[in-house]
Amino acid sequence: MERLLRKCHIRNQLVRECMAECLGVYVLILFGCGSVAQVTTTEDKKGQYLSINLGFALGVTFGVFVSRGVSGAHLNPAVSLSLCVLGRHPWLKLPFYVFFQVLGAFLAAATVGLQYYDAIQIYSGGVLTVTGPTATAGIFSTYPADYLSLWGGVVDQVIGTAALLLCVLALGDRRNSPLPDGAQPVLVGAAVLVIGISMGSNSGYALNPARDFGPRLFTYIAGWGVDVFKAGGGWWWVPIVAPCVGALLGTLIYELMIEVHHPPTSCLEVTEGKMGPELGGPECA
Amino acid sequence: MERLLRKCHIRNQLVRECMAECLGVYVLILFGCGSVAQVTTTEDKKGQYLSINLGFALGVTFGVFVSRGVSGAHLNPAVSLSLCVLGRHPWLKLPFYVFFQVLGAFLAAATVGLQYYDAIQIYSGGVLTVTGPTATAGIFSTYPADYLSLWGGVVDQVIGTAALLLCVLALGDRRNSPLPDGAQPVLVGAAVLVIGISMGSNSGYALNPARDFGPRLFTYIAGWGVDVFKAGGGWWWVPIVAPCVGALLGTLIYELMIEVHHPPTSCLEVTEGKMGPELGGPECA
Amino acid sequence: MERLLRKCHIRNQLVRECMAECLGVYVLILFGCGSVAQVTTTEDKKGQYLSINLGFALGVTFGVFVSRGVSGAHLNPAVSLSLCVLGRHPWLKLPFYVFFQVLGAFLAAATVGLQYYDAIQIYSGGVLTVTGPTATAGIFSTYPADYLSLWGGVVDQVIGTAALLLCVLALGDRRNSPLPDGAQPVLVGAAVLVIGISMGSNSGYALNPARDFGPRLFTYIAGWGVDVFKAGGGWWWVPIVAPCVGALLGTLIYELMIEVHHPPTSCLEVTEGKMGPELGGPECA
Amino acid sequence: MERLLRKCHIRNQLVRECMAECLGVYVLILFGCGSVAQVTTTEDKKGQYLSINLGFALGVTFGVFVSRGVSGAHLNPAVSLSLCVLGRHPWLKLPFYVFFQVLGAFLAAATVGLQYYDAIQIYSGGVLTVTGPTATAGIFSTYPADYLSLWGGVVDQVIGTAALLLCVLALGDRRNSPLPDGAQPVLVGAAVLVIGISMGSNSGYALNPARDFGPRLFTYIAGWGVDVFKAGGGWWWVPIVAPCVGALLGTLIYELMIEVHHPPTSCLEVTEGKMGPELGGPECA
Repeated sequence: MERLLRKCHIRNQLVRECMAECLGVYVLILFGCGSVAQVTTTEDKKGQYLSINLGFALGVTFGVFVSRGVSGAHLNPAVSLSLCVLGRHPWLKLPFYVFFQVLGAFLAAATVGLQYYDAIQIYSGGVLTVTGPTATAGIFSTYPADYLSLWGGVVDQVIGTAALLLCVLALGDRRNSPLPDGAQPVLVGAAVLVIGISMGSNSGYALNPARDFGPRLFTYIAGWGVDVFKAGGGWWWVPIVAPCVGALLGTLIYELMIEVHHPPTSCLEVTEGKMGPELGGPECA
Repeated sequence: MERLLRKCHIRNQLVRECMAECLGVYVLILFGCGSVAQVTTTEDKKGQYLSINLGFALGVTFGVFVSRGVSGAHLNPAVSLSLCVLGRHPWLKLPFYVFFQVLGAFLAAATVGLQYYDAIQIYSGGVLTVTGPTATAGIFSTYPADYLSLWGGVVDQVIGTAALLLCVLALGDRRNSPLPDGAQPVLVGAAVLVIGISMGSNSGYALNPARDFGPRLFTYIAGWGVDVFKAGGGWWWVPIVAPCVGALLGTLIYELMIEVHHPPTSCLEVTEGKMGPELGGPECA
Repeated sequence: MERLLRKCHIRNQLVRECMAECLGVYVLILFGCGSVAQVTTTEDKKGQYLSINLGFALGVTFGVFVSRGVSGAHLNPAVSLSLCVLGRHPWLKLPFYVFFQVLGAFLAAATVGLQYYDAIQIYSGGVLTVTGPTATAGIFSTYPADYLSLWGGVVDQVIGTAALLLCVLALGDRRNSPLPDGAQPVLVGAAVLVIGISMGSNSGYALNPARDFGPRLFTYIAGWGVDVFKAGGGWWWVPIVAPCVGALLGTLIYELMIEVHHPPTSCLEVTEGKMGPELGGPECA
Repeated sequence: MERLLRKCHIRNQLVRECMAECLGVYVLILFGCGSVAQVTTTEDKKGQYLSINLGFALGVTFGVFVSRGVSGAHLNPAVSLSLCVLGRHPWLKLPFYVFFQVLGAFLAAATVGLQYYDAIQIYSGGVLTVTGPTATAGIFSTYPADYLSLWGGVVDQVIGTAALLLCVLALGDRRNSPLPDGAQPVLVGAAVLVIGISMGSNSGYALNPARDFGPRLFTYIAGWGVDVFKAGGGWWWVPIVAPCVGALLGTLIYELMIEVHHPPTSCLEVTEGKMGPELGGPECA
């Protein structure tokens, strides 16, 4: 078996990274949207809003564990974009990462749709709707609360994603808080948990264009129809655009208030492999 | 005392491993089924679905802590099977592991039955039933939701166990995500938690033939009768067969998408003890 | 300030250990009984059974953090007793440990009584009762459920404390599962959490003579009267005696099934400071 | 980008520390008050008291991660004061720290007000009140329960903050419980969690003058008016004064019962950088 598997060995780094991003987002959405499906179809009997928060948080944690050693576990086009802007990721790889992130989310939504097929049929009476008392589109992608204005939704997503990037950058900044191996995936999950607890009620804290658009595409194809793009006053573009703006804003705040002011580290440390330019350390010729 | 105990010292490795697997599954089921008993008999007053999820998650965590240094803490015939297929565990030991895993689950179910004897008597009015408003067989083993088709149940268990193996293999893959000592049992528990949160409502996420069959056998003997095999349209074989299929599927996905593509590590690292063939490293003659 | 404090320096090891045990149990009961007080007096509006489980779990965690470097953080007469029996703690210190454990629990109960004085007065209408709809004695010590027989209560406490010791001994057994510094207090707390989730409804999982008797003494003195000893058919002695039996049983099971069978470690490892007789390693002359 | 950012490099240590404290408290309040806003405006449908506890706990955790490498992450004037009294922080920096802590809390409250603008308008019917059925001032700062006397409130805050400092000092005392890098922020968050679970119902566990006064100032300016100072019998000064008293009390208890009695460490260890006077070790000339 081991030998058979080894014949499938792929050396191309980009292909490996794309597969890792795809599987990472797959795991994230499988657990995240799965927890919404469980709460929705059991009418809160086997879960509650907190279990949805935990589903996405641990979904992120295991998505990161599955992919971090290969692709760095961005799992989010807005995160990939921020790292490109900071010069820590090549711009050339960006479209590939984004495509496979969306693909992973789409496939995971399809898996959730398969696993909860019977449950969704019973709950919805066989009619797949985007709004109304037995709406099930919200299992897969986000929709704004009734009271939320479009502008309020944009602000909500910008603040939420900025908060996410603040936390993620702080966790990755070894000169601020060095972490033991294995702690970072758990803590990124905890950041998603607290954002879901404190910023989830307005519009479902997408924070991630792939997390929202992949499953929305699935619902569009799988029977919920064009309503998934029309609902919420054409809400669908907000969780794509606003997280990118928010990610850049959060990056800027963390860099300007904390990271750029770290005292320069000596080149000795760099050569010892502790810190290199990719971690914000100095460039040593 | 210390000296008295030392006289019981057993050197046989397989006997030690079987005892460890037995005690590990015992701990898992004691906490897992105990939490279902508490929620069921108090009618959700001293617990809720989330506490059942936590009970099984921490049950797995402490089951792993109790046994990992001796037997590697499989605690699940489907996991043992996958490791045999991958060539990381000898096929010869498989039947022994499986038997003692089922035995541990049986003994733990008996302990839960003893500890909750008074509570079950009061709750059920002294009549032990498998279905109906005061059914108590669900404390011990899993039964499908009313709406679930048999085929839907098989799909549910296959997806759930595949997700479990994806997470477990990623946590054990040092070239993907190295973990500090002691983190792995907690994170395997977290994987079980998130599966319970996102895939628990269809059929109770057995994911483990021993976890389901051992306690089912106990209920068969202890007074619930042959209904435990008849209920759910003869559901009992699904949590035995489907997890094995799912475990192999999850293993295949992780291997093909991530692990086989890791760049070969040098033999130097192997001799330094960092990585050997059993971890998927190269064989060095 | 620093210099002033240093004048209070005490060198006597036993005095230091007794203060640490006292403060450790104080922290445990302050958080544990405080969470019961919050849930009881707000009638589940600001907490639920799970928050009581978390209160005792994190109470144990911080009780251990406060005392482990000084006294080893037993925090429980049944644990001290087991360690004496295993020969890992001197019998001579046992009565001192037990007395200061009970004292810490008593003082913490008094603090909770002070902090929740107004809340208890309002909730109970100023009448401190042990049973009935506005009973408040259960904030401080445990009482059995109505349905529980005395013998069932003894079995419940024996099983619960045996499960606790199984987990605690596994966490402390470096040859089974080595842990990083700082993980052990959190994991002992997690063991208490899962026991509360899976074995809490019968009789409130005291598992600890000091945890139960110290606060019971406080309620006896502070106005609840002799009913605290009479209630539950003279329940008060069960959480004192049964945990001691359970602790010994759990110790015996872990030793006989796992620890005594570890292959003997070489004396080299001992001299390197990795493992000594106090950890169950061999004695090297 | 990286080069552009580097031009903003600030060398002044105090300025860097003030920015870090400001951002740290900002993160703490953004998540903490955000979770109260979510629970309040959804009327417990998307959260419950436990999610508020988690919001403040993880808010503290990420507030510490954001600032610890720069300022030491006090995030609380009462903590800064205690460290000054202990001689571990210069008195001269105290006013700067306090000002920027309050500023961060004020700015975070404004952000929460912006993000939940639509939700608060709908929930309150557009009338911002401090008391009554649709009061929203409690989203931002703490108010006592109806039954609580002023003196009871002072006792509540003194005990709560003393408990916080007991935990924080134990976590920072390497001779009692050494922790791996990265564990301390999580455990300080856990201490805040358990205090919220066990001491939250009386008056909302402010424990922190900046956490309470900054948001109160925001509500005063943003439309809730002078009632925010009048409500609860002029409650506003209690969460400013009592936490300072409590912090000193907790510090005194931990020092007198545990830390001053540690056996003196040799000067060798100090020169090896393991422990210095700032950690309570001996001064080596």
